[in-house]
Amino acid sequence: MPLQDYMNLISTDDHVIEHPRVWLDRLPASDQESGPRVVEVDRGAPGDDGTAPGPAQVWLYEGRSYPQMALNAVAGRRREDFGLEPTRYDEILPGCYDPQARVGDMDADGIEAQICFPTFPKFAGTVFLQSQDKDLALRCVRAWNDFMIDEWCAAAPTRFIPVVILPLWDPRLAAAEVERTAAKGARTISFPENPAPLGLPSFHTDHWDPVFAAAQEADMPLSMHFGSSGRPPVTADDAPFAVAITLFGCNSMATTADLLFSPVFHKFRNLKVALSEGGIGWIPYMLERIDYTWERHKYYTGVNQDVRPSELFRRHIWGCFIDDEFGIANRHWIGVDRITWECDYPHSDSNWPHARKRAAETLVDVPDDEVHQIVEFNARKLFRFDA
Amino acid sequence: MPLQDYMNLISTDDHVIEHPRVWLDRLPASDQESGPRVVEVDRGAPGDDGTAPGPAQVWLYEGRSYPQMALNAVAGRRREDFGLEPTRYDEILPGCYDPQARVGDMDADGIEAQICFPTFPKFAGTVFLQSQDKDLALRCVRAWNDFMIDEWCAAAPTRFIPVVILPLWDPRLAAAEVERTAAKGARTISFPENPAPLGLPSFHTDHWDPVFAAAQEADMPLSMHFGSSGRPPVTADDAPFAVAITLFGCNSMATTADLLFSPVFHKFRNLKVALSEGGIGWIPYMLERIDYTWERHKYYTGVNQDVRPSELFRRHIWGCFIDDEFGIANRHWIGVDRITWECDYPHSDSNWPHARKRAAETLVDVPDDEVHQIVEFNARKLFRFDA
Repeated sequence: MPLQDYMNLISTDDHVIEHPRVWLDRLPASDQESGPRVVEVDRGAPGDDGTAPGPAQVWLYEGRSYPQMALNAVAGRRREDFGLEPTRYDEILPGCYDPQARVGDMDADGIEAQICFPTFPKFAGTVFLQSQDKDLALRCVRAWNDFMIDEWCAAAPTRFIPVVILPLWDPRLAAAEVERTAAKGARTISFPENPAPLGLPSFHTDHWDPVFAAAQEADMPLSMHFGSSGRPPVTADDAPFAVAITLFGCNSMATTADLLFSPVFHKFRNLKVALSEGGIGWIPYMLERIDYTWERHKYYTGVNQDVRPSELFRRHIWGCFIDDEFGIANRHWIGVDRITWECDYPHSDSNWPHARKRAAETLVDVPDDEVHQIVEFNARKLFRFDA
Repeated sequence: MPLQDYMNLISTDDHVIEHPRVWLDRLPASDQESGPRVVEVDRGAPGDDGTAPGPAQVWLYEGRSYPQMALNAVAGRRREDFGLEPTRYDEILPGCYDPQARVGDMDADGIEAQICFPTFPKFAGTVFLQSQDKDLALRCVRAWNDFMIDEWCAAAPTRFIPVVILPLWDPRLAAAEVERTAAKGARTISFPENPAPLGLPSFHTDHWDPVFAAAQEADMPLSMHFGSSGRPPVTADDAPFAVAITLFGCNSMATTADLLFSPVFHKFRNLKVALSEGGIGWIPYMLERIDYTWERHKYYTGVNQDVRPSELFRRHIWGCFIDDEFGIANRHWIGVDRITWECDYPHSDSNWPHARKRAAETLVDVPDDEVHQIVEFNARKLFRFDA
């Protein structure tokens, strides 16, 4: 007890910052002008101290610019220096965009493997939904997936679990991309936690059936990262950003209720969903609440009346945690087999480079076999990622 | 153990359905046409079985009609017959609108006292925000408060804890109404869980300072009922209503994070907030998460950097539960002094007429002194409602 040296940490939620040549290296010459590329932009006038900020780097795609190229990649900084910048590659650790450097950063913290979600395309690739040229967008989606599988994961195949994004504007193309990438070794699909706020049909339609059928057939879990619906939990326009950061787990709660009251798991009995970055401490409350609601309201709300939602959860959904003492103390209410661990490198919620130390502290009262299940075996089994 | 006969159940969240003369009895003759009154409306064509529905009763106010006069007042029905109707007084129990009948229903289930939130005005009286004639609206707000104090609670002063609503469009008028009703014995204020979605300034402004100052001065806790922001937790337009019912507790989570990261409790150190119907099982997760967020993000998000948010919670916020086994099992993570019980009569989430029996089951493993605190003493102290 608790976290033994022989246990490998498998993290189910981390992030890659795409290097500037991800699309340039893969798109045909005719796409180079419109496809995603990094440009330098002026960061405006000098500040109060008289020093002018240097130019920022932003992604340019179809003429639109996308700032926050690194989102919140503050790994390596002191908390006092956290912010929503950085805005240049030279302000972030090479481990953000270089797979060999990433492996070095993982080794430094005793982390065995990771799933690395996209940054410029957003967590579930939803940036490409905005594309005017959907043929170009499809090539961009495939290019990211090829980058992830053939370049990033190939650099250290035992260290990275390949995740892919989909052309979400067309479920048949999306299903085909599931098949194409499954054949190349992809292990999970980053899928929106809720498609409705993106202007797409909800989980309560049959629109996604081809995608879910393909995912089930390929045994590729849908990894639903909080925030990937594009609907952040903002209470008020002038609320501090800390409020939304605190509440992002509510998005995973919404995904849970939305899916469990949808036809999805009744149609796809082997489909698996991983709630990425959602935390776990809320799960027992939510399962009790959803069963209570189901018992009272199933007769008039058009939901399945036969299977208790908490039962569906225990077959289909997994949670993960960064740092959730209450959730770990209540792991038997959740189901030890439902829990995976995550590092969230290089974002500010991560404990890297002290993630292993912190995991050991959180798991200090947990028996060895349960710790091993939580930090390693559950993720290996769910994502078919053998040692 | 557990719930002894000598312990009185004080419920901190129930509902009154206003009888048709609440405003007619109190508004001057010149307001009778525009003020709230009940009218009969056709319910449309016969259904598939050939029987025509009888007329419904709706509130008419300033020419606008407000259906769902009883919201979800299904007390007394079998679950199989639950729905969002009823739509007529003769379809609901007299205990919904008659205080003597209510006391009878409370006696039948061993419930000592209740807080009865408004129905037609909505939980926090926000219907009157929509008024064209704000002078009329102010008279309507005062009329409801006079009804609640002088008629409903006066019918059984030891059985009802007086709650009032405020003229939310004007903080000075609202503060004056706090003072006026406090002098008449009001004990709590039904206040929106988040004013921003109602088009009002958020908790992050000084707009509400006069109201919060008056509430603190009168020692009247703000009771924030979930849903009172007018922003239900809807995942998708076509999601079954069961999804939103399940997720309403997320609104109370949002209120918690919003308030704890706002200046409110730093300015009003004796202000108290009761989260009505929000449940309690999520509280430990949320407090851990909000502290985690605060530790990492306090330096750049403009929030107070000195007081840990969970500490503020333990001074200022109370939760309540209907049926929350997980929350009760984890009561020491929450704080036994933070928890009250509620019945939710006459809504479908209520266990009435078996609420006392169900409370006894939920509390079966809890020591007597803690049970007594949770079901009675905490509410008596918070709302200054002595036996």
